[in-house]
Amino acid sequence: MPQHVPHSPSSSPALVSSRAPVATEGASSLPLIEAYRQVRALSEALCQTLECEDYVVQSMPDVSPTKWHLAHTSWFFETFLLADVPGYRPFHASFAFLFNSYYNGVGPQFHRPHRGLLSRPTVAEVYDYRKHVDLHMGTLLEDVSDRDEVVERTTLGLHHEQQHQELILMDIAHVFWNNPLRPALRPDAAQPSSAPAPPLRWFSGPAGKDSGICDIGHAGAGFCYDNETPRHPVLLAPFELASRCVTNSEYLEFIEDGGYDTSELWLSDGWAMLRDLGWRAPLYWERRDGGWHEMTLGGMRPLDPYAPVVHLSHYEADAYARWAGARLPTEFEWEAVAATLPATDLERGNFVESGRLHPTAAQDLDDRPAQLLGDVWEWSGSAYLPYPGYHPAPGAIGEYNGKFMSNQMVLRGGSCVTSTTHIRPSYRNFFPPSARWPFTGVRLARDA
Amino acid sequence: MPQHVPHSPSSSPALVSSRAPVATEGASSLPLIEAYRQVRALSEALCQTLECEDYVVQSMPDVSPTKWHLAHTSWFFETFLLADVPGYRPFHASFAFLFNSYYNGVGPQFHRPHRGLLSRPTVAEVYDYRKHVDLHMGTLLEDVSDRDEVVERTTLGLHHEQQHQELILMDIAHVFWNNPLRPALRPDAAQPSSAPAPPLRWFSGPAGKDSGICDIGHAGAGFCYDNETPRHPVLLAPFELASRCVTNSEYLEFIEDGGYDTSELWLSDGWAMLRDLGWRAPLYWERRDGGWHEMTLGGMRPLDPYAPVVHLSHYEADAYARWAGARLPTEFEWEAVAATLPATDLERGNFVESGRLHPTAAQDLDDRPAQLLGDVWEWSGSAYLPYPGYHPAPGAIGEYNGKFMSNQMVLRGGSCVTSTTHIRPSYRNFFPPSARWPFTGVRLARDA
Amino acid sequence: MPQHVPHSPSSSPALVSSRAPVATEGASSLPLIEAYRQVRALSEALCQTLECEDYVVQSMPDVSPTKWHLAHTSWFFETFLLADVPGYRPFHASFAFLFNSYYNGVGPQFHRPHRGLLSRPTVAEVYDYRKHVDLHMGTLLEDVSDRDEVVERTTLGLHHEQQHQELILMDIAHVFWNNPLRPALRPDAAQPSSAPAPPLRWFSGPAGKDSGICDIGHAGAGFCYDNETPRHPVLLAPFELASRCVTNSEYLEFIEDGGYDTSELWLSDGWAMLRDLGWRAPLYWERRDGGWHEMTLGGMRPLDPYAPVVHLSHYEADAYARWAGARLPTEFEWEAVAATLPATDLERGNFVESGRLHPTAAQDLDDRPAQLLGDVWEWSGSAYLPYPGYHPAPGAIGEYNGKFMSNQMVLRGGSCVTSTTHIRPSYRNFFPPSARWPFTGVRLARDA
Amino acid sequence: MPQHVPHSPSSSPALVSSRAPVATEGASSLPLIEAYRQVRALSEALCQTLECEDYVVQSMPDVSPTKWHLAHTSWFFETFLLADVPGYRPFHASFAFLFNSYYNGVGPQFHRPHRGLLSRPTVAEVYDYRKHVDLHMGTLLEDVSDRDEVVERTTLGLHHEQQHQELILMDIAHVFWNNPLRPALRPDAAQPSSAPAPPLRWFSGPAGKDSGICDIGHAGAGFCYDNETPRHPVLLAPFELASRCVTNSEYLEFIEDGGYDTSELWLSDGWAMLRDLGWRAPLYWERRDGGWHEMTLGGMRPLDPYAPVVHLSHYEADAYARWAGARLPTEFEWEAVAATLPATDLERGNFVESGRLHPTAAQDLDDRPAQLLGDVWEWSGSAYLPYPGYHPAPGAIGEYNGKFMSNQMVLRGGSCVTSTTHIRPSYRNFFPPSARWPFTGVRLARDA
Repeated sequence: MPQHVPHSPSSSPALVSSRAPVATEGASSLPLIEAYRQVRALSEALCQTLECEDYVVQSMPDVSPTKWHLAHTSWFFETFLLADVPGYRPFHASFAFLFNSYYNGVGPQFHRPHRGLLSRPTVAEVYDYRKHVDLHMGTLLEDVSDRDEVVERTTLGLHHEQQHQELILMDIAHVFWNNPLRPALRPDAAQPSSAPAPPLRWFSGPAGKDSGICDIGHAGAGFCYDNETPRHPVLLAPFELASRCVTNSEYLEFIEDGGYDTSELWLSDGWAMLRDLGWRAPLYWERRDGGWHEMTLGGMRPLDPYAPVVHLSHYEADAYARWAGARLPTEFEWEAVAATLPATDLERGNFVESGRLHPTAAQDLDDRPAQLLGDVWEWSGSAYLPYPGYHPAPGAIGEYNGKFMSNQMVLRGGSCVTSTTHIRPSYRNFFPPSARWPFTGVRLARDA
Repeated sequence: MPQHVPHSPSSSPALVSSRAPVATEGASSLPLIEAYRQVRALSEALCQTLECEDYVVQSMPDVSPTKWHLAHTSWFFETFLLADVPGYRPFHASFAFLFNSYYNGVGPQFHRPHRGLLSRPTVAEVYDYRKHVDLHMGTLLEDVSDRDEVVERTTLGLHHEQQHQELILMDIAHVFWNNPLRPALRPDAAQPSSAPAPPLRWFSGPAGKDSGICDIGHAGAGFCYDNETPRHPVLLAPFELASRCVTNSEYLEFIEDGGYDTSELWLSDGWAMLRDLGWRAPLYWERRDGGWHEMTLGGMRPLDPYAPVVHLSHYEADAYARWAGARLPTEFEWEAVAATLPATDLERGNFVESGRLHPTAAQDLDDRPAQLLGDVWEWSGSAYLPYPGYHPAPGAIGEYNGKFMSNQMVLRGGSCVTSTTHIRPSYRNFFPPSARWPFTGVRLARDA
Repeated sequence: MPQHVPHSPSSSPALVSSRAPVATEGASSLPLIEAYRQVRALSEALCQTLECEDYVVQSMPDVSPTKWHLAHTSWFFETFLLADVPGYRPFHASFAFLFNSYYNGVGPQFHRPHRGLLSRPTVAEVYDYRKHVDLHMGTLLEDVSDRDEVVERTTLGLHHEQQHQELILMDIAHVFWNNPLRPALRPDAAQPSSAPAPPLRWFSGPAGKDSGICDIGHAGAGFCYDNETPRHPVLLAPFELASRCVTNSEYLEFIEDGGYDTSELWLSDGWAMLRDLGWRAPLYWERRDGGWHEMTLGGMRPLDPYAPVVHLSHYEADAYARWAGARLPTEFEWEAVAATLPATDLERGNFVESGRLHPTAAQDLDDRPAQLLGDVWEWSGSAYLPYPGYHPAPGAIGEYNGKFMSNQMVLRGGSCVTSTTHIRPSYRNFFPPSARWPFTGVRLARDA
Repeated sequence: MPQHVPHSPSSSPALVSSRAPVATEGASSLPLIEAYRQVRALSEALCQTLECEDYVVQSMPDVSPTKWHLAHTSWFFETFLLADVPGYRPFHASFAFLFNSYYNGVGPQFHRPHRGLLSRPTVAEVYDYRKHVDLHMGTLLEDVSDRDEVVERTTLGLHHEQQHQELILMDIAHVFWNNPLRPALRPDAAQPSSAPAPPLRWFSGPAGKDSGICDIGHAGAGFCYDNETPRHPVLLAPFELASRCVTNSEYLEFIEDGGYDTSELWLSDGWAMLRDLGWRAPLYWERRDGGWHEMTLGGMRPLDPYAPVVHLSHYEADAYARWAGARLPTEFEWEAVAATLPATDLERGNFVESGRLHPTAAQDLDDRPAQLLGDVWEWSGSAYLPYPGYHPAPGAIGEYNGKFMSNQMVLRGGSCVTSTTHIRPSYRNFFPPSARWPFTGVRLARDA
């Protein structure tokens, strides 16, 4: 690790213990300043094993360099909180331009596909930027009583930073995959599943065999994004949901059955993309010496047959489901089931805190589906659209979610690189159907 | 018109009287053979004023040459009906390849963006192909009692041909617009509205001020596409729908208010497209001598302030609605209202049979919205997705609709280039949100 | 042939006898008005077998639709001659824009890659345009004594039209090749060679075994392009030139020896292009039923082993020469030899007047190389650059040649689709090294 | 500077004194081992002020990351010398693939435009690679008597490394220019000229007013590239050469006279490029606060009116010359003059050893042109083609120069970022005519 990175392993929060309780509600939650410190520290802890050079590279336009993520998350606090503090002086005059992602309301942005052309500011300067922002945020957060907007925006900023923690991991995986040397972020991570995946079973949706109205969207006092609101009733036809995600060995059957050669299984756009880009397997799969291997954050690994298949597009998920005689769940079906889970399922999910950084085989739960939370983001069959009555927040903050409600599909449940404290049953993630570099997977559903 | 085109104006069905009753149900409907003749004749009648050269050009990959449409619609009957007739010999060995659009189940297809590179078969040969198919279809349709599949597929083929009639018109408009000579298909068409548009009013959705469950999807015995099924209940929150489409003069206010310069009004993908392509107005608008003009199938025309704005993308429709403090209706809201219209509204709509070939100002209806059917396709806020329980037909015919359920938005209501007999309240049209060359427009909705 | 094309076979000049003596000098030459009529008539005669639709298509940006060529050549006379005639009114206000190729000095031009998007003006209108121009040119040319500029520009216009006659043929070949129906312009043309090619022999350059100074460039009173001037001395090292062009069977040996798989034979740009575009053989070659065939203006034909290989890029010519232990001649070496040929060699060359429209096997000439004139354009190893002291003509006419002296290679000798009266030993043709759709071939040279 | 870069300023060769006499002939030259050490040390010295992140970025496909240059130059010695040493083991199994530039004869190469995607090997590992190679080369060079091939290839490797030293500088300039922070490699470099440029005068070519034969190509015993051979006679018409390069203020006149708006001054390809890319001035010029500035290796600087204009394409050089009523010299004219210069002109030229890293105003030499060597590479009017009788070396080494003889123009004379010991009058540099990021400039010539 380059010397100029301003924290040493000893002072960093251990990855495993850093369940920063950002989202928890009620009396037990940490003071905001503590949550701030823990989330900010985790971002840096995730980068501990990176070399200085690793922070710089952008392997495709969708990917951002690690140092850009570290700077942009700081820019968020600077822009939406510190800029209003009397007497605050920005760390650097150009950073407002360089590290604005897409907030037109704040100002123009450096061209996104060129983020990897910037060798400066250096990694050390970015860490200095973080220190500067942390210092001023520390002062700001000393007393937040009666300062609802500060609390609200800081909380948003912390969830924003948690999203970028996941982006740091999925982006660096893509960077490393583009390198023939196949570097590993954590050579010790991504171990194979310790036990086989249980057989797939089906669970009825909450309404049983009848159609029913379910309330969908965030409820309660805790944090949520605006796109999870307003909570509203949705009419669901009877359906069943699979007990776990589709595994690598199941997906391999699809491949070996000619799945990638059978046009009738595919959406038209998916088939066109498959042919243009030569897709034959999930993104990070590779045949070596007669067997399938997979690039992980722990390096190249033989494919774990019991782990959930990961890194496939919506098109592949949809084609697999059709081949299997099933379909993808709607985001409403998914949420209706997830809302019935006990709170403990969240705690034992495979999230970033586990340190595995890769999905692993499901356990068989007696009375409910497993793996809904953690392991892989599950592609739904729902387009990402506003809930009835949705209104984004006023001002530039309103650009956070609403303007992306076009050409994207909803994913649910979080993944092995998501923070436990970042996810909830009503959480709506979204990506274009072609995206494969997030930790995306499949769970089947079917009409009852 | 080149002499080799094998029909003369005298023998052609007059455009105005050709309401081929393909879709009507019950005793009054024409025998299938008559419907076949009328629909087929209309395709050729629409081309009467074309020069031979006009049939050849493909102005962008989404557009097909007129002669391709005339051949492909014949290919449809040949492939899905005549091929099963014992002893039938295809007109030409290569046409199965050249005029297959996207049916992978039938076989490979000539590369779509290259359709405009084919000078052969000639226009005359394509008309000969039509004659050949008509001859054999005539024999096949002589007696269709007890031959349900023939009736079903022929009916589908006629609706398919009606869709291509609309494509012929919207594609040739694009071809002519690309030509600095600005040719007109019908110099006498596209006259300005004879009276001002009535003021915009709001109508409550069917459930009034309460949420309610509506049945959505096709009902009854008549023809529909598979994507309109199964009919199913949908829960609607209270809403209001505008009494008519947005007019050119209203849209002009949006432009003059800086609509195309105000990023916060736009979906992110729309804003990116606007900047990349330099959008400043709907597709066919052009400033000349200080005033706005519009390319129509009747040639360049001064903008009719009272006519519905036409040829805009979903992004522009959505941005306009946001600017107006409203939103686009969902496809379910739209259908719930349209299902309540009297049958006479369909008859007096502005469809292809009117010969106007351009939208015109709405009339004020006392108790219900006007213009829902005809004039312009209305962008909904709904992504094009399968209805719960949807299953495409088996075999290659199943590729008709289902495989396109990705990255598209639903449009409703038909347009001034749609056949009256082709449209119905449950009809779901779909285009990518960037499409501007169909006859697309906007109707506003809002929460009640 | 569409009826509207305003000439009938009987009134057209027969292709074989139409050696319009544009370029001849001295007393025997035709009056200019006669030359004008003959050249103009040949352009139309070449199109006699085209269908109306064939005139419209542009199969790649470098290709122009036939009707564009017919109009542009008329535009040339209208712009550079008739526009100066008092009282002359242009045929159509938009044609100055539509049919200007690249003369910035005249005005802006319609976007070249979009020429195939124009269905109008129709073919009939273009023939009317030609008639209009011919009428006025007829008047202008009635008496040209003392009107040197008229003579000069008309002569240039006729040579210009002859170049476009060749372009009409090579462009329509490309259009037809893009069509799976593989239409033939002249089903009777492109017959195989009647006798084997003679063995390849070597001829010493004019200076024999010593270096020597040769004068290069146009000499004498006849017409030439500005790029053939000024005549100037060039120092040549001793060299030898092959007795004929490389044949198909010789080129096949190169292919079968792995020529397209051996990077060391290729210029770096050529190797990159070969890999990007998947080149495995000359442009129009195709394997069918185990044997090589070739698309010609007479349709698909089995490869003639004795005919010169045609339709290859400079890169392929250069790689072949390297494989053969030889090299391409410089344009100066080529001209030094060609200047020594008897005038009769020009007359018996395989030019457009032969009606073959395809190269054919060489005859063995006793004392000199064969096929230097006609059959195929021969790639030289010389970049297309100005001769010392070169100055283009003043004004827009000066854009004819000079501004293209960049990134192109010189070709020499004319081809089977060139007019006899258009070619001469000092003639410099030029194309980018990647061009394959002209009638390009190879002759070898080597150091003595 | 990151700690892991394995040299400190004190142990590095001072930039100013490092005239490594690679190319000198005769008794006075250094032993090869000394030359090796000096050249290798200079590569690292040039990078002294770089941050670790700067080594990683590739700002366009033509540019390579600094660490790639440092590794590739080592790969050259490893591949062409050490690989033949019995018992030598390559430093890393993948480096043969990663750091091969374009030698197909050696093996496949990592995709060039992706060099900037590689964060690994790290900078420190690349320096370790250099040490490893230096160690083994040191052993190999201890005694080179009777080992001509080792001497020859090592000498080639050192000239190769000198070329990459220039590439390191021109590439990093491009990287820094793409960064809105506009970093400077050497904030103290690129000072303005201390005195005005002398008036432009004209010198006759060596043959005076008559045509004459000159010998062109390398002569003598010293090192040269194969493309400078064989030496051969060339016939030159009388010409004159300008006394110095075109200055910024002269070029500014061209701009202000509408040079970039006047199509008739431009080659067709250049005009198309100007319009596509929006060229309005040389690459690194920028208007700020009403005056022109220029990005240099010393950072942004007000334009020095007396310095030679630099960073323009062949198209701009050619257009300027046409505007000025002159032309570019051929490479033969240039060399004929340069061959007459006294050896001292080389010594006092503005080369990399001056530390200026930017061109500076010419001095007026009494009897001969100034600035022929150093300051800027001078675009000639000659295409880069083989000399008569040219043969590349056998084997992969033969790919060094010969295969690039296509689509490139010759540049002569070296620049302010070239080593003194790397240049000579017969040296032929080459770039595509569109290249602007090398240190390219213009010297005028004219017919006498």
